[in-house]
Amino acid sequence: MAERGALDYRSAGVDLDAAERVKEGLKALVASTRDEHTLSALGQFGGLYAVPGDLESPVLVSSTDGVGTKLKVAFLAARHDTVGQDLVNHCVDDILVQGARPLFFLDYLACGTMDESLVTDVVAGVAKACKENGCALLGGETAQMPGFYAEDEYDLAGFIVGVVERDRILDGSRVRAGDVLIGLGSTGLHTNGYTLARKIVFESMGLSIDDEFPESGRSVADVLLDVHRSYLPVLSDALKAGHVRGLAHITGGGIPGNLPRTLGSELGAVIDLTSWEVPEVFRVLGKAGGVERDEMLRVFNMGVGMIAMVAPEDVDGVLEGLSRGEAPGWVMGEVEVGEGVRWA
Amino acid sequence: MAERGALDYRSAGVDLDAAERVKEGLKALVASTRDEHTLSALGQFGGLYAVPGDLESPVLVSSTDGVGTKLKVAFLAARHDTVGQDLVNHCVDDILVQGARPLFFLDYLACGTMDESLVTDVVAGVAKACKENGCALLGGETAQMPGFYAEDEYDLAGFIVGVVERDRILDGSRVRAGDVLIGLGSTGLHTNGYTLARKIVFESMGLSIDDEFPESGRSVADVLLDVHRSYLPVLSDALKAGHVRGLAHITGGGIPGNLPRTLGSELGAVIDLTSWEVPEVFRVLGKAGGVERDEMLRVFNMGVGMIAMVAPEDVDGVLEGLSRGEAPGWVMGEVEVGEGVRWA
Repeated sequence: MAERGALDYRSAGVDLDAAERVKEGLKALVASTRDEHTLSALGQFGGLYAVPGDLESPVLVSSTDGVGTKLKVAFLAARHDTVGQDLVNHCVDDILVQGARPLFFLDYLACGTMDESLVTDVVAGVAKACKENGCALLGGETAQMPGFYAEDEYDLAGFIVGVVERDRILDGSRVRAGDVLIGLGSTGLHTNGYTLARKIVFESMGLSIDDEFPESGRSVADVLLDVHRSYLPVLSDALKAGHVRGLAHITGGGIPGNLPRTLGSELGAVIDLTSWEVPEVFRVLGKAGGVERDEMLRVFNMGVGMIAMVAPEDVDGVLEGLSRGEAPGWVMGEVEVGEGVRWA
Repeated sequence: MAERGALDYRSAGVDLDAAERVKEGLKALVASTRDEHTLSALGQFGGLYAVPGDLESPVLVSSTDGVGTKLKVAFLAARHDTVGQDLVNHCVDDILVQGARPLFFLDYLACGTMDESLVTDVVAGVAKACKENGCALLGGETAQMPGFYAEDEYDLAGFIVGVVERDRILDGSRVRAGDVLIGLGSTGLHTNGYTLARKIVFESMGLSIDDEFPESGRSVADVLLDVHRSYLPVLSDALKAGHVRGLAHITGGGIPGNLPRTLGSELGAVIDLTSWEVPEVFRVLGKAGGVERDEMLRVFNMGVGMIAMVAPEDVDGVLEGLSRGEAPGWVMGEVEVGEGVRWA
């Protein structure tokens, strides 16, 4: 009875065998991120992670995010091994601002058809960044969704769980008027503003992905795919020492959209816009797109990926610590009684 | 200079204000899922959850999944308040098979444009199921990705974290030859096999979403959107009593794709296919699509959403407990020395 017009799962667009092969190919990569707390192997229903025993009163800190339309740049460049790093580093930074160190990560990758080498590249980027951040890649899902995504396109989301000692949570309550704002340099756009940036680069400027990005000596692909920076390595000493009173991760919404979330309702900030040199990529985008300064500041990080709030007496120590890492740090302003962000 | 051809973020397809309004509208819903361990409010960078203090050696169990192409049915039916329930219940079942109870959940919702009522419906479903499963909705991301998704379409993924006492982890090692397999009824397709099911229903059978599904007295939308069942309420007593030696969640790959993952390499199963009545929906699909029995068993759950492995002396107690819940349970086979699944 199944002879004529018989349907099976593969002809309906889902290839279970390819999914199995990809899973096999990823085993070693995923295994490289394991630590002594990782109790499960790849392929079990759920990932197992023992709560570390070195905390008095452990609080889990969790966040989820995607890569957003930066993926479209990866599609154009056919370069899929960096977006996983963007995803992990973004998530690491999101929980770092509450004082947490990462424990484990899971990824969700959805595509129309299963391109084995593409999936492997994406997850390799995820695993690389997990390893760099001391975070186990505990699980993941590769979803084949025929009819959802264009050929060679996909979406990628991540989920992180970290831990912080309860009395070391950063929730803004330690921040005081007079605290110094230390800016930490971004690597570029990180993962925000790509819808606007792509419109400017590929429409207003009429560039192609392999063209040179003005004033950079690098290709459009290289500039726009610079990997989102993880601030865990450069901030962990200052956090352990208790020298960081608050952190703001500068993502969608820019400085004015993110800094006030950390400062709460009774404090504001004054920021000296001349205290750092806005990287060329933002200047080129702003000029070519004719984007107002305030809109630029609301959409892009403008060269500031993270802002730390530090007591005046600890500033020198924190800056000295930062000078040994890869992310430049500088005094960019001050916390004040008030509301929102003032530019000076 | 920003007069002519000036671009801003909204004209580039991203509406930050709509995103803010949706977030405000969801606050009460999300708050309804909080418990005494939830330390964070909506809108912080990461969600905070205190590790429960009632466990000796707590192990976190985490999983991620999507709803898959069942979403396409929701799009056709323009019914968005059930897919969030599918997502949560699926994830709850995925960690239940390792003996874990859920602690918290995060969702990732990606769409092309921000339809406020759609997003609210989706997240309402997520929150409803979180509440039913005693699980905090700790965070989530609504990503606006212009150019990724068709109008009124979206993708939805979920991440769950649960906890289990280390010496109560179900990992297959307790299962013995001679253990009884107890089947637990599914509500329908759950979240698997929709690519094939949609092809059969909408192409081979030529039905529309509002037509009656044969032999059901219900619409195609109603039958295909039946909510994935959570087995947490019906199994938690048996788990607490230590009467469950192993569990298999029957998802993609069906019984032969999932049961062996629990049994390990030295045990197999014999299953009596006449021990339950395969629900009408699967019989209709198999017949209309001319799908072979083995392929049906590999793609669909065939009416079995979960299989519990129980020692012979505990079977009566477990079945009696199940008879008080909403999921029917029955003896469907036995664990044996061997490999894979035999049909009898």
